[in-house]
Amino acid sequence: MVKNTYMRWRLPLICLLWEIAMIILFGVFVRFDPEADAHWKEEWHQKNLTSDIENDFYFSFPGCPRDDLRGFWLPDDIPPALWLWSCWLQLPPCRLWDPVGSPDAGLVPFFREWKDTHWSGKVKDAGGSMTIHTFGAYFGLTVTRILYRPNLEQSKDKQGSVYHSDLFAMIGTLYLWMYWPSFNSAVSNHGDAQHRAAINTYCSLASCVLTTVAFSSLLQKKGKLDMVHIQNATLAGGVAVGTSAEMMLTPYGSLIVGFLCGIVSTAGFVYLMPFLESKLKIQDTCGIHNLHAMPGLIGGIVGAVTAAAATEEVYGKEGLISAFDFTGDYKDWTPTVQGGFQAAGIFVSLAMALAGGAIVGAILKLPFLGDPADENCFEDDVYWEVPEDEESGLYHMHDPTLKPVTS
Amino acid sequence: MVKNTYMRWRLPLICLLWEIAMIILFGVFVRFDPEADAHWKEEWHQKNLTSDIENDFYFSFPGCPRDDLRGFWLPDDIPPALWLWSCWLQLPPCRLWDPVGSPDAGLVPFFREWKDTHWSGKVKDAGGSMTIHTFGAYFGLTVTRILYRPNLEQSKDKQGSVYHSDLFAMIGTLYLWMYWPSFNSAVSNHGDAQHRAAINTYCSLASCVLTTVAFSSLLQKKGKLDMVHIQNATLAGGVAVGTSAEMMLTPYGSLIVGFLCGIVSTAGFVYLMPFLESKLKIQDTCGIHNLHAMPGLIGGIVGAVTAAAATEEVYGKEGLISAFDFTGDYKDWTPTVQGGFQAAGIFVSLAMALAGGAIVGAILKLPFLGDPADENCFEDDVYWEVPEDEESGLYHMHDPTLKPVTS
Amino acid sequence: MVKNTYMRWRLPLICLLWEIAMIILFGVFVRFDPEADAHWKEEWHQKNLTSDIENDFYFSFPGCPRDDLRGFWLPDDIPPALWLWSCWLQLPPCRLWDPVGSPDAGLVPFFREWKDTHWSGKVKDAGGSMTIHTFGAYFGLTVTRILYRPNLEQSKDKQGSVYHSDLFAMIGTLYLWMYWPSFNSAVSNHGDAQHRAAINTYCSLASCVLTTVAFSSLLQKKGKLDMVHIQNATLAGGVAVGTSAEMMLTPYGSLIVGFLCGIVSTAGFVYLMPFLESKLKIQDTCGIHNLHAMPGLIGGIVGAVTAAAATEEVYGKEGLISAFDFTGDYKDWTPTVQGGFQAAGIFVSLAMALAGGAIVGAILKLPFLGDPADENCFEDDVYWEVPEDEESGLYHMHDPTLKPVTS
Repeated sequence: MVKNTYMRWRLPLICLLWEIAMIILFGVFVRFDPEADAHWKEEWHQKNLTSDIENDFYFSFPGCPRDDLRGFWLPDDIPPALWLWSCWLQLPPCRLWDPVGSPDAGLVPFFREWKDTHWSGKVKDAGGSMTIHTFGAYFGLTVTRILYRPNLEQSKDKQGSVYHSDLFAMIGTLYLWMYWPSFNSAVSNHGDAQHRAAINTYCSLASCVLTTVAFSSLLQKKGKLDMVHIQNATLAGGVAVGTSAEMMLTPYGSLIVGFLCGIVSTAGFVYLMPFLESKLKIQDTCGIHNLHAMPGLIGGIVGAVTAAAATEEVYGKEGLISAFDFTGDYKDWTPTVQGGFQAAGIFVSLAMALAGGAIVGAILKLPFLGDPADENCFEDDVYWEVPEDEESGLYHMHDPTLKPVTS
Repeated sequence: MVKNTYMRWRLPLICLLWEIAMIILFGVFVRFDPEADAHWKEEWHQKNLTSDIENDFYFSFPGCPRDDLRGFWLPDDIPPALWLWSCWLQLPPCRLWDPVGSPDAGLVPFFREWKDTHWSGKVKDAGGSMTIHTFGAYFGLTVTRILYRPNLEQSKDKQGSVYHSDLFAMIGTLYLWMYWPSFNSAVSNHGDAQHRAAINTYCSLASCVLTTVAFSSLLQKKGKLDMVHIQNATLAGGVAVGTSAEMMLTPYGSLIVGFLCGIVSTAGFVYLMPFLESKLKIQDTCGIHNLHAMPGLIGGIVGAVTAAAATEEVYGKEGLISAFDFTGDYKDWTPTVQGGFQAAGIFVSLAMALAGGAIVGAILKLPFLGDPADENCFEDDVYWEVPEDEESGLYHMHDPTLKPVTS
Repeated sequence: MVKNTYMRWRLPLICLLWEIAMIILFGVFVRFDPEADAHWKEEWHQKNLTSDIENDFYFSFPGCPRDDLRGFWLPDDIPPALWLWSCWLQLPPCRLWDPVGSPDAGLVPFFREWKDTHWSGKVKDAGGSMTIHTFGAYFGLTVTRILYRPNLEQSKDKQGSVYHSDLFAMIGTLYLWMYWPSFNSAVSNHGDAQHRAAINTYCSLASCVLTTVAFSSLLQKKGKLDMVHIQNATLAGGVAVGTSAEMMLTPYGSLIVGFLCGIVSTAGFVYLMPFLESKLKIQDTCGIHNLHAMPGLIGGIVGAVTAAAATEEVYGKEGLISAFDFTGDYKDWTPTVQGGFQAAGIFVSLAMALAGGAIVGAILKLPFLGDPADENCFEDDVYWEVPEDEESGLYHMHDPTLKPVTS
């Protein structure tokens, strides 16, 4: 019996109905536990707690090895290592010197300098929607634009995903998904803010998975799921609450953000990436624009709106002061002012990214940096000793002159 | 010189002798450190500690991103995501819609509802031997029974393990092994109970590894180790102490539980799985019955016995009250009553699993859910966009018409 | 256009200049945050803190599942499991019984016994440069020497790295790199010492990555990077600060240690390994000597020097006592005495390793242990059930009689 396995309408329908039902149920029934609510500061006094570490969060939640670790060592040496690791992590080979393949490679020294000097303490961005994702992505895409290679087509066949590598990459996706709540909460204020940041991030990530699955199927004629979407767009929800996760975004608010971001990110892979390459001459081989740039912008906007909408009713008097650090020089700030500065932060991030990317792109064009010829891009053995093994066997196997014995 | 590498008797003998020696040594010499002993509550007062977080455990032990996080957000959105992830995690392809391959796929919404409503606080099950493993496994196996496909044989050749995937799966096993102590302790009472849960889980896991190795070799004529046993049965010890790990099971008690569970789980793969398929028409492609169902039942039983055997001498007066929450409405409960409720919990779990599985199985038989034809089960490309690369090359290679050139 | 991609001088030059600039900048500008400085004990009193857990470190840093967990369970059962896992983790197959491939396989029972009995509390070695790395590596290399097989050459072609396995192994490297700071700090004193240990370890690891890249390229005629160096030597920096990380090594001190260790470790792969095999008859198939033995010795020496150089000015009066446990029987010890004991510890580790390795090597030579013939070393299927799949296909493919159809 021939079965109908065409899921283009049925799968998205189920996913979206489910997700909408969840959002409604969460909106009606789910509130933050007192330990994750901004009112916790008041409870703190009532319960005579002596430390933020009494928050239930610290009894079982895993930490995250974030690069700044609340800034306890000023300029640190993690950046160069991260820079190198981020290159190695990306399988295609000519990345180390050819930022075409690695738009976020050069971000790190810039990032730290301007963030630490001009930024911290005024504009909230604990999960880095603006300072990490928006900045990093547009920085790298600018570099990519400058290093555009019109004739890269000839090595393009080496760029596609490979079955084993796709499975391999899913480990990375899973790991990132699991630890994103730790990442977004790592540098938040101690106590309820860290607790809340982890919950909001989980909600957004979970919601984003569902819409990614729905739209990955919906946007393709055959209605099949695409591993590249699943590997990337499922994480976009974590980026999109990077700024607001520590605020009182609420669980159902996070679900809505993740819901929308999954759609934007998946649609970006299907419609925007070809446009970026053909019209804007930006070769975004890893889909940075879909996982970091657009979700980062969404995150900045959501953060500005959430900050501007903060009220004493929702946060409590003391909670509001604590959440936005309305102390010292900033004791007269209001949520509206905070929201305005948050909005400004988006544009500052973008401006720094474009300027920094232009400078670094120009440097990387210098001839002594040993970039490969167009036909060698995406080849490991230009810069790496590669073992001669099955891989060569596999290529051999593709040899079209190797044919079944027919006689 | 021809060497004798037949290990069927020598390897198991060494492993079992070693393990028995360990159990004796642990029984004689090893006791819980005061920080992991139920008497810690009393020491707490003597040392004037102000918080459970003073327990040494919290200074270096990693947390675990458990789904409920002590229930601080009531119905949460993790379940749908977990549901999807658990599907993706399992490599064979037609899992998303065909629960034949994924017996635990549908458990999650059911699980939370009944656990949170009827259960929590009365029956102890911190590591989920009953509420996660027993329930989930029998739920899924019931679904599998209902969706039985007598003609699945024709796609069976696509189901076997693959060398690379076996290595790949070992990463998952290692990760689970390392974090199982965090998982089992995540929702235990703060302080000594969490500390103890981690230690007991480690002991059981370590012991289980040894008997798995011994019996994997012993139960096969060639005396060789089987990767499938190593990947699964080595974890069964963690399941089997899920209920009792937070109790005063003691390190050598945990070693004994792990010892027995490794035998049961490995023997299940060798003897019970073929029986389940041929006689009971349950196609347990992932060995859920051996890793979750049987160890979960063992865990429930061990938990009931350990609870019933609790005494003030072992736990201390205050420790006993704290360990089993004999406060408020339950202040007159005795360990015997607790043990009885624990035992009842096993049957409740089973009943809920069979009933829930039957309902979900019936729903999944509805024709609009797009299940694949028998011959397409275990094929990725029914529902996924698959890159055309080496994989297709490999299939091509298996083509029997491709033969060495002999002339 | 033909491009010049020969990086032998340009890549190392950039890496080394950058690293030297970092060291200078760190030396001039970077100091420990108060929470990571040994003076924290004094601040503790001023701030009326009630517990070491108030240190910022515990609010966001992930723990590490270390085997001893501050010794709270005396002889534990982790060692046998670790022993087995460490074998499985190493892909080449005949490891379980043939320690040629696994020099550190037998270390564990020895290690614990002598460390716990004769050592702890007097000589500081929180990250195990001496007691784990130096001891384990020379123990295993001694075993390897005794089990030397002059005719192993015939199976040597099965020993080389494989493209997929190289990617696979990089996951392990990344995981180890990320969690090494947690590992080195896990058993340090609570509070500032743990905090400091994590920072120093990060600095050393980061620095080591840069010199590894530089020298991997520099030491080869083609100037290409070698995956084996990257997988191993990048971690050597973590080993080399194992003893001193919890001391006031300072960030720039850690950078210098990592810098030197990356050179030593990479040069070891290129120059020393062939020498070990041809002259000393030690078949170090995994490069244990380069990742554990030499960096462990460096770590012991750095620890002795750092301890001997400790002053009240740098640590504070109370901090010095706390850092080296100059209390009770040791209240009259000075940093100089401590440094002397640290130095003695290196020789004790070496002596124990050589003696223990000799004994275990002799035991492993007993004929009933089922070691494989020379030509079967590095073959999985001697001891494992191996699926017949693509792998066999691949071997088949290499069959030289399979040739393109030319007629």
